[in-house]
Amino acid sequence: MGHRRFEVTTLGTGAALPARGRYPTSQLVNVNEALYVIDCGEGAQERLRTHGANFMRIGHVFISHLHGDHYLGLMGLISSMHLMGRTNALHVHGPADLKPIIDLQLRCSQTYLRYPLEFHALEPISGRSAWTDDRVEVTLLGLRHRLPCTGFVFTEKRTQRLLRKEKLNLIPQFMRDRVKQGEDLVLPDGTIHPNQELTTDPPAPRRYAYCSDTAYAPELIDHIRGVDLLYHEATFTDRLAKRAKETMHSTAAQAAMLARDADVGQLLLGHFSSRYKNTDELIAEAKAVFPRSSVSVDGCTYPVST
Amino acid sequence: MGHRRFEVTTLGTGAALPARGRYPTSQLVNVNEALYVIDCGEGAQERLRTHGANFMRIGHVFISHLHGDHYLGLMGLISSMHLMGRTNALHVHGPADLKPIIDLQLRCSQTYLRYPLEFHALEPISGRSAWTDDRVEVTLLGLRHRLPCTGFVFTEKRTQRLLRKEKLNLIPQFMRDRVKQGEDLVLPDGTIHPNQELTTDPPAPRRYAYCSDTAYAPELIDHIRGVDLLYHEATFTDRLAKRAKETMHSTAAQAAMLARDADVGQLLLGHFSSRYKNTDELIAEAKAVFPRSSVSVDGCTYPVST
Repeated sequence: MGHRRFEVTTLGTGAALPARGRYPTSQLVNVNEALYVIDCGEGAQERLRTHGANFMRIGHVFISHLHGDHYLGLMGLISSMHLMGRTNALHVHGPADLKPIIDLQLRCSQTYLRYPLEFHALEPISGRSAWTDDRVEVTLLGLRHRLPCTGFVFTEKRTQRLLRKEKLNLIPQFMRDRVKQGEDLVLPDGTIHPNQELTTDPPAPRRYAYCSDTAYAPELIDHIRGVDLLYHEATFTDRLAKRAKETMHSTAAQAAMLARDADVGQLLLGHFSSRYKNTDELIAEAKAVFPRSSVSVDGCTYPVST
Repeated sequence: MGHRRFEVTTLGTGAALPARGRYPTSQLVNVNEALYVIDCGEGAQERLRTHGANFMRIGHVFISHLHGDHYLGLMGLISSMHLMGRTNALHVHGPADLKPIIDLQLRCSQTYLRYPLEFHALEPISGRSAWTDDRVEVTLLGLRHRLPCTGFVFTEKRTQRLLRKEKLNLIPQFMRDRVKQGEDLVLPDGTIHPNQELTTDPPAPRRYAYCSDTAYAPELIDHIRGVDLLYHEATFTDRLAKRAKETMHSTAAQAAMLARDADVGQLLLGHFSSRYKNTDELIAEAKAVFPRSSVSVDGCTYPVST
């Protein structure tokens, strides 16, 4: 079960002003070949194509907030899926205001989508469940930004219990699924084998948390405690803490404090201001606080692993 | 005067579905260092940056119609200009429906532009003048498409008359501007030198015509007759003439027929369907009808020359 894929590709790691080869924010989350897009800045469809992502496997797009660098690529993606003949539903989760923006543009271009677009309005309330399917549950984080802004926690669905190899011959084939679900085994002769004797715990569900854009928000700690991977924006270094506060963004040190206090597995920084030619200072600052920090790079993929 | 720059950079030469490295439609027209953008598909700002265009010199954006591949990059460009501290007005010319699309997105992102955005609603009526400044006059073309769609003719402003070198010593410095405007020279002693003796005609104003997206529209011929450069869409080859007709696009042969019948200087093809891996067949088809044809390439610049 440990081989199930769970990884994040940062399609764009830039901030509001795209520059220095950094695209605006967009991420692709792959959970066992089901694809989820988080934020969809301008050019996201081009980056998805470059990455080789199969557009038809993208079932969901989650939009954190309505600053252009987080959603202006959405209409192009919606339109391309239409032109490519998509028929399966696309779920778009975002602020309620996103719906009229999509509808107006579809109407003005006289586009009648060939597939259902299911819109889910989000409110940035930490802990609220937004989506569950057979692979993940997505819960929300209430971020602190100039506009209502939502973060996301992707939690792998708890996988089935693992059968103990040495007990396999005890369990009739047709009973195995039920034992994996946690049932005791009752044999035709009335013998009962408690589930604990037959199975072991599955691996802990892996968790990925996404926090962009936000001021330093310690109230998130309880909601992201122990996640395996935390993506957190780091628009500035601490030298520009005042600017960060004014614009409701975080510094690399603040992102690292949150990661440390929530005891996450790995911290991934992103959303770098265009003023930073490279990320040396940002990563140094974060590592001083939380050594398991790294910077995201456009087009790179990061595993969510325990 | 022949050294005044007048050139067109095709930032994207793809059609509705961006693919094969071709970006959606956008062009940069440089007239003596004043910049005009025609159409603004997703990624246009990135292509402008790659090209080294100074965003502050872009005074106008002309949007032909509201299919996404012609305008979805506009909001990002507007937003970047704002973040870069622009204060001078940006003129956006496009279908009336574009205004509420811009306004809604500015409102939802709580963006209060630092510069005036002057919106000019266009109706696709051939011959109508849409803009005049000291460098160009822009007139409109009524194209044939599924949505109201406008083409553009950029006509260089007639430059001043040229002083004959051998007469320079006759004309006092302070009178030269007026002679260049066409006035006769009246000297203090009452001598009159007719303007014709002192000056020669300036070069004919150069003209650039932009036609995308459109079905074959011979009614345009009178409006584009003799332009120095005609950009015309060539979404398909003649093999797909039926598909072209259904979708209200043109074939390469149709574009070439229009160029031939309007006796233009050069024909530049673009807006190629993603089905064409290369443009060999498209250019061959056009050249068979009109030899002075070429295909536009993403990022390349074409002079408008007599």
